[in-house]
Amino acid sequence: MDIATIIGILSGLGLVSYTVLSGGNADIFIHVPSMMIVMGGASAATLVNFPLKEVIGVMGVVRNAFRNSNSEEVKLIDQFVNLAKVTRKEGILAIDRELKNIKDDFMRSGLEMAVDGTEPETIMTIMETELNYLKERHKRGQQIFLSLGTYAPAFGMIGTLIGLITMLKNLDDPSTIGVGMAVALITTFYGSLLANLVFLPIAGKLKNRSDKESDTKELIIEGVLAIQLGEHPRNISRKLLNFIPPKMRPDDPNEK
Amino acid sequence: MDIATIIGILSGLGLVSYTVLSGGNADIFIHVPSMMIVMGGASAATLVNFPLKEVIGVMGVVRNAFRNSNSEEVKLIDQFVNLAKVTRKEGILAIDRELKNIKDDFMRSGLEMAVDGTEPETIMTIMETELNYLKERHKRGQQIFLSLGTYAPAFGMIGTLIGLITMLKNLDDPSTIGVGMAVALITTFYGSLLANLVFLPIAGKLKNRSDKESDTKELIIEGVLAIQLGEHPRNISRKLLNFIPPKMRPDDPNEK
Amino acid sequence: MDIATIIGILSGLGLVSYTVLSGGNADIFIHVPSMMIVMGGASAATLVNFPLKEVIGVMGVVRNAFRNSNSEEVKLIDQFVNLAKVTRKEGILAIDRELKNIKDDFMRSGLEMAVDGTEPETIMTIMETELNYLKERHKRGQQIFLSLGTYAPAFGMIGTLIGLITMLKNLDDPSTIGVGMAVALITTFYGSLLANLVFLPIAGKLKNRSDKESDTKELIIEGVLAIQLGEHPRNISRKLLNFIPPKMRPDDPNEK
Amino acid sequence: MDIATIIGILSGLGLVSYTVLSGGNADIFIHVPSMMIVMGGASAATLVNFPLKEVIGVMGVVRNAFRNSNSEEVKLIDQFVNLAKVTRKEGILAIDRELKNIKDDFMRSGLEMAVDGTEPETIMTIMETELNYLKERHKRGQQIFLSLGTYAPAFGMIGTLIGLITMLKNLDDPSTIGVGMAVALITTFYGSLLANLVFLPIAGKLKNRSDKESDTKELIIEGVLAIQLGEHPRNISRKLLNFIPPKMRPDDPNEK
Amino acid sequence: MDIATIIGILSGLGLVSYTVLSGGNADIFIHVPSMMIVMGGASAATLVNFPLKEVIGVMGVVRNAFRNSNSEEVKLIDQFVNLAKVTRKEGILAIDRELKNIKDDFMRSGLEMAVDGTEPETIMTIMETELNYLKERHKRGQQIFLSLGTYAPAFGMIGTLIGLITMLKNLDDPSTIGVGMAVALITTFYGSLLANLVFLPIAGKLKNRSDKESDTKELIIEGVLAIQLGEHPRNISRKLLNFIPPKMRPDDPNEK
Repeated sequence: MDIATIIGILSGLGLVSYTVLSGGNADIFIHVPSMMIVMGGASAATLVNFPLKEVIGVMGVVRNAFRNSNSEEVKLIDQFVNLAKVTRKEGILAIDRELKNIKDDFMRSGLEMAVDGTEPETIMTIMETELNYLKERHKRGQQIFLSLGTYAPAFGMIGTLIGLITMLKNLDDPSTIGVGMAVALITTFYGSLLANLVFLPIAGKLKNRSDKESDTKELIIEGVLAIQLGEHPRNISRKLLNFIPPKMRPDDPNEK
Repeated sequence: MDIATIIGILSGLGLVSYTVLSGGNADIFIHVPSMMIVMGGASAATLVNFPLKEVIGVMGVVRNAFRNSNSEEVKLIDQFVNLAKVTRKEGILAIDRELKNIKDDFMRSGLEMAVDGTEPETIMTIMETELNYLKERHKRGQQIFLSLGTYAPAFGMIGTLIGLITMLKNLDDPSTIGVGMAVALITTFYGSLLANLVFLPIAGKLKNRSDKESDTKELIIEGVLAIQLGEHPRNISRKLLNFIPPKMRPDDPNEK
Repeated sequence: MDIATIIGILSGLGLVSYTVLSGGNADIFIHVPSMMIVMGGASAATLVNFPLKEVIGVMGVVRNAFRNSNSEEVKLIDQFVNLAKVTRKEGILAIDRELKNIKDDFMRSGLEMAVDGTEPETIMTIMETELNYLKERHKRGQQIFLSLGTYAPAFGMIGTLIGLITMLKNLDDPSTIGVGMAVALITTFYGSLLANLVFLPIAGKLKNRSDKESDTKELIIEGVLAIQLGEHPRNISRKLLNFIPPKMRPDDPNEK
Repeated sequence: MDIATIIGILSGLGLVSYTVLSGGNADIFIHVPSMMIVMGGASAATLVNFPLKEVIGVMGVVRNAFRNSNSEEVKLIDQFVNLAKVTRKEGILAIDRELKNIKDDFMRSGLEMAVDGTEPETIMTIMETELNYLKERHKRGQQIFLSLGTYAPAFGMIGTLIGLITMLKNLDDPSTIGVGMAVALITTFYGSLLANLVFLPIAGKLKNRSDKESDTKELIIEGVLAIQLGEHPRNISRKLLNFIPPKMRPDDPNEK
Repeated sequence: MDIATIIGILSGLGLVSYTVLSGGNADIFIHVPSMMIVMGGASAATLVNFPLKEVIGVMGVVRNAFRNSNSEEVKLIDQFVNLAKVTRKEGILAIDRELKNIKDDFMRSGLEMAVDGTEPETIMTIMETELNYLKERHKRGQQIFLSLGTYAPAFGMIGTLIGLITMLKNLDDPSTIGVGMAVALITTFYGSLLANLVFLPIAGKLKNRSDKESDTKELIIEGVLAIQLGEHPRNISRKLLNFIPPKMRPDDPNEK
């Protein structure tokens, strides 16, 4: 689990709950119909905005925001360097028996193509295409969350307008004004909270994750092509280390 | 019919109606003059903003948001592979008798040019030009809906200002304040609801549709040119499969 | 006259007037000092923002938003095809006697240069430069209207603040609160109405017009160059038809 | 002095003052502490946002918004044509005695380098570098004014919040509510007025000036290089006239 | 310490404190729970939005906004010119003994690679990669501050909504309305102040610093490569002087 996402949402909710509870009227803040118009309205607008299949598929993407992301680049580079040594000693076919140890699907399918003798251009086209579709799918996920983050406050305001208009129409009994306005404002509260603690930040996290994941996939593509071309392990190491920040690089004598 | 668009708008309206009805004053929410200034004002501003012909033509574009879009790419690729087999066996003229089975106008007219011996560059220019005009027309449709989504809340606010000013002028009878403000706010309510449930989401859907449709048309252009050049069916298949997401590709032995 | 611009502004004003009149207090909505601070303030800010000459010259540009735009491209293509026939039969000098029949200044001056034997690169540079200055001038016109559309609501709010502050200072007589606030809100009303019915939509229309006009001028440049190079009428026709939407093209046997 | 900037700011202030005075409570609108929090707060935020040196240097840039800008391009072209004639008759060294008549520093230093026999590429690099730094300095000036135009209304709102909170805390004496709110709103009024009449429009004017000034400098660079290459005066004239709008060009027989 | 950042924040806080104190109710403006929901909420949303490691690492970046930045470019150019003289006299290996006098890590590690005989392309790739990661890290820092500047006012509003709703629910005792609203508005006040005096301006300063720092690093890369290629000191001087504004350049006889 990605601790930051969890901590962020839970601590944000905790702070808001604490503020609500310390006011001594927590019950008014739990209002199912208000939640329905904000969440339902934002979801309805998002359904109109995006193809049905993508809205349904967004749950698969949102897991990315909660999944832990270990930075595996250094391990990947080690793997590529080892594969390069094997290739130089025993030829590219020897990689076949290493494939079962490779956990990353993208890397393994790339190496399988290399072992099968597919031309480098074809491998690159196929891998880049897959990467582009991944990025595209991630981008859709971000857009759906950005949409929810825009429509939720809008439906919060629509709910508040409904509440205000209803209350103003019935102004005969002034004692109800306060409660009426309080209830009317609940939808604006829900809309702002959902947008600013959940939807917009998750859209941001999805973007950050997607950027990182496609950096890693670019590294893998570069590595697979270098293996196929039978490059020297030291060159592969130097090339791939350029994909990771200087501080994260292991001490490498080739660098100086 | 595109189920998402329909479900979205209907469920959104349902939720809003439910919230309105549960407040017990549904009649005040139906106010024809308020609807007129919001819809009429937004339409008037849109008429000033865009050429008349395009505003009228937008109805042709908006159907796209409600039309079902089956993803036909896999079928199209099959068709191209079959046409490629025919071409390699019997020459490009043999395609002439297949033309009547091709339902897609864009694909058929492209293949007709190929059969007539038009040069590939000319075919590509003509097909790309048509695709560009299609995209341009779609983009105008999106812009008109974005415009409506911007002007509708603006005229909602203008209507509310008129209502507020009129009410404030007549403040002699305090008992009318509530109703006056309630009526004044109706236009803001209409403007927000139209913008966030109809205009802006439909603009978004039109964009998504247009992107998908031009991907398909790019695939068709690539396919027609490959047929004319007499490429091998297996190569055509591999080339065109790059236009569809990896997961949607049928199992293809050429891939590995 | 461009009917859409006229209909839009008039119908928008009509709707607003109707709403105002049906409230029964139309007189309060006509307030010259409020109009002065909104229009005057927005104009003053625009004068600071843009060079004086361009603000004055904007009236020449704004006529574009009201002028009728017949789509003359098909006629222009016919003219070029005819000129191409004359050129191929009698040489480029024969075009000299056709010049007086050409109404479009841009086209005529281009053809004059061609008849005078100016080199194609020079003709293209001169015509493109003129087109760029035209686009630039149009863009400035749009920016001035966008500016007015931004400053008008701002000065509307400034006017309302002045009114509110003045009223709040004199709160001794509560009976004047209503009228005071009503008057204060008039400037916000003027600002919103001017921005959303006049300034922003006209900026949009100017953009649409400018795009269309420069498409036509690009067609003319292409045509003049093709004439000078003595291209075959059929090729000129095919080339220039690419500048207009497929549906507007006359049936042309060369196309199939 | 640039008349438009002066007229704009003075007439805007005049209109606002007139509106304020006609309300009969002008004294409340002059409130030094309110002015201090708006101007001081916006300046403080701008100091945090930009390097100290640039904030201090902005005064040198802002003069551009008030300085008169005569369009000197036609004169510059004449000068270059005359210099070209001298060069063709007597060689480039003859330009040395003309240098003292050239008022534009940028042009003179460019010609000095040409007379000294510096290579054209070096001259171009040096002049372009200087132009880029000029543009960069102008852009910083615009950004500082845009910043002020963003922070001024923000601190206006912060001032109003302080006023409101203070007043609401002391609600015991209802007779002070009006005056309290009036004073609270003054900062919002100052913030809006400063942003929309001064900061944002001056940022816009600086941008317009900078664009024009760098167009002129581009013309000078082109001219200096043409002189050094000993181009024919007629060609220099034609080349440089492309830098000015068609309507401003003197009648030139070479054009037709 | 960067004086502008310190002066800006302190003077801004001073002005706000003065305004608060002159209202005579300073105690209400210090409200820990309000501060908690604004700062806590904005931090929570930022934690969801960005990877945990980057949020923690932002403190290292924010020092840049407070660190003094002397413009060292002129000194750097002198150093490069001296190194170039040494290189031309005694060969590149002689630079080894100068390395200990070079304080800039980036420059020293670049020169070390040059002395070790690394190829120029490799040096450039390695140094550019390091510069890109530096820029990337700075950009993340800016984005985190922009995020805080967006979420802080949002949670300010959420806090105000909670306060308003709680107060409206308890409208029985009208004497508490004022204090209730005052407390409710405190969070909006905190949110605006934090965003406009701290978060957004610091994001701006980080951007300005990062731009300047990467200009300096570009100069160093250019200098290291020129040293390795054994260029003439005069040429190195001329080349590197192009990286600094004309006014800051020392009088250099090579320039004329």
